[in-house]
Amino acid sequence: MTKIKGRTEIAELGQFGLIDELTAPFTPKVKSTIKGVGDDAAVIEASKSTALLLSTDTMVEGIDFDLTYFPPKHLGYKAVTKGISDIVAMNALPEQITISLAISSKISVEFLKDFYAGVEFACREAKVDLVGGDTVASINGLVITITATGRAKKEKVVYRSGAKLHDLICITGSLGAPFLGLKLLQRESRVLEGVVGEKPQFEGFEYLLERYLKPRARYDIIESLAEEGIVPTSMIDISDGLASDLMQICRSSLCGARIYLERMPIARQCSQLGEQMHIDPITAALNGGEDYELLFTLPLEMREKVASIGCIDIIGHITEPQTGCFLVTPDGSEIELRAQGFVRKQE
Amino acid sequence: MTKIKGRTEIAELGQFGLIDELTAPFTPKVKSTIKGVGDDAAVIEASKSTALLLSTDTMVEGIDFDLTYFPPKHLGYKAVTKGISDIVAMNALPEQITISLAISSKISVEFLKDFYAGVEFACREAKVDLVGGDTVASINGLVITITATGRAKKEKVVYRSGAKLHDLICITGSLGAPFLGLKLLQRESRVLEGVVGEKPQFEGFEYLLERYLKPRARYDIIESLAEEGIVPTSMIDISDGLASDLMQICRSSLCGARIYLERMPIARQCSQLGEQMHIDPITAALNGGEDYELLFTLPLEMREKVASIGCIDIIGHITEPQTGCFLVTPDGSEIELRAQGFVRKQE
Repeated sequence: MTKIKGRTEIAELGQFGLIDELTAPFTPKVKSTIKGVGDDAAVIEASKSTALLLSTDTMVEGIDFDLTYFPPKHLGYKAVTKGISDIVAMNALPEQITISLAISSKISVEFLKDFYAGVEFACREAKVDLVGGDTVASINGLVITITATGRAKKEKVVYRSGAKLHDLICITGSLGAPFLGLKLLQRESRVLEGVVGEKPQFEGFEYLLERYLKPRARYDIIESLAEEGIVPTSMIDISDGLASDLMQICRSSLCGARIYLERMPIARQCSQLGEQMHIDPITAALNGGEDYELLFTLPLEMREKVASIGCIDIIGHITEPQTGCFLVTPDGSEIELRAQGFVRKQE
Repeated sequence: MTKIKGRTEIAELGQFGLIDELTAPFTPKVKSTIKGVGDDAAVIEASKSTALLLSTDTMVEGIDFDLTYFPPKHLGYKAVTKGISDIVAMNALPEQITISLAISSKISVEFLKDFYAGVEFACREAKVDLVGGDTVASINGLVITITATGRAKKEKVVYRSGAKLHDLICITGSLGAPFLGLKLLQRESRVLEGVVGEKPQFEGFEYLLERYLKPRARYDIIESLAEEGIVPTSMIDISDGLASDLMQICRSSLCGARIYLERMPIARQCSQLGEQMHIDPITAALNGGEDYELLFTLPLEMREKVASIGCIDIIGHITEPQTGCFLVTPDGSEIELRAQGFVRKQE
């Protein structure tokens, strides 16, 4: 890339550096702002005891999804998941969403009806209301912005910044499946380009497709944690990949981390497809992203209690800040974790 | 346009028909949703006595703004105005915003810094916090989505649906200036295309440019109305043009309206540029849009009280629903108002 004088390319700063620099002047000044920029969601005072959470996400056609293999109904469902997952990551239950669409002339009314059918299905499942939005014309491609709100008792809100030395690092469900689901869709789309009468080969990998096309936000875990009386010390949802999101927790909590390769929750279908396609499922788990699982930390003494919930794995622990963030392999060697932001997921 | 079987073009339904059809299944089910889709902002329960307002707007490069003559700092300012104006239109004061950007590789870090400088300036002026957002890559063009929150006592929230027979129709400030400002920018941009060393001719029309490039939301009016103890019966902000927005009030309030041509608040510069460019300033006022002024209705007996605020004009009154929405000319003839939605503002 040629350097133009007085012009800094965004790639030179990287996504996180850029956001840090741009949002630096925006320290909260309004009385009702409890937490501004820098977590999964902003925290706003609702009443004396209650906080309202607010979060916004944007999905761009050709970057975040490809309409050649993303059915509109699934896209609507996934947009809702992406929005409410940020609320869930604050240990709150989502309540309302708005959806703004910039739509090109390529999009038909039938497409939009299917898209909103998916939105409606996800809203019903998550007990969330669609309360507004905007529908405008775009020159090129579909851009979806989803804003979500949620509510929690103020003392139950969990930030990225609360992880403490020796805390357990926990992860819900399994990782890497959405990334491998995407790779499968891309492979079949390449294979069948221009071919008539053939069907894509998805047998045995339906779980991977479902995790990519129709991921569910883990509001069920928020309910389970509440039932067990557990309030994590820190939490984030896995949207950019375990490595990047764990590093966000470490950055906000001023700590280091060790996670263990053999404890990584990887679904069987991930290993199978990974072998076929020569993709390391651990890399998919670390850097794939879009898992919408929850990554959280807990004091050591909560080990038994959290185990009783099920579908939660303890994958490591919090260390001193100067020790950095590493993946420990079974032979004891340590691999430094690297964050990926602004990676174009589609190829 | 060729009709494709099983495919309905969005133009066939129109923006309002489309939104009606898509949002029909979304009746509020969550306890905290006071008002869902169908007004300037959604209304959410904050506490027993207080409501939180929530609104989202999207602006698309090439449709809503042209970067060849829209300075990034002004664009940031205007995005905030567009967002908070919807909160103001509910008779509430804005408190927080989030901004999501989909940015192409054309956008530099310097552009984003200027953009956020404009955001910061507008936030400071309106006493609003930027509390979050999302920054993602786009293939083509800049897409800005702004979400705004605000707060009001529940009984002070004003909806589009409350206008009553014989109510006065009031408008703040003047109309049509942003549309004429845009026309001026487009003219000078055409004239100077490929010309070196010449400057655009804006003298005498600075007000029009400012109204287009740096409009201010009328939160000052919300404070003035509160000081006078006035709660309008209905309110909307002028974003699509007076005709379209008045028809929204009539549609929601199940009423008709008469507005009077000679009462239309038109700035002197609008008439002057309109004459030069053969644009009827009344048409600009009715259909131009992006004025971000407030259109509201009041009981007849409030006439004196509202007059004391200043910068508010009474332009007509509410009539029976079956009488429709008309502009009355000085000779007594009536011109039916027509809504424009989904009109591409740029040419």
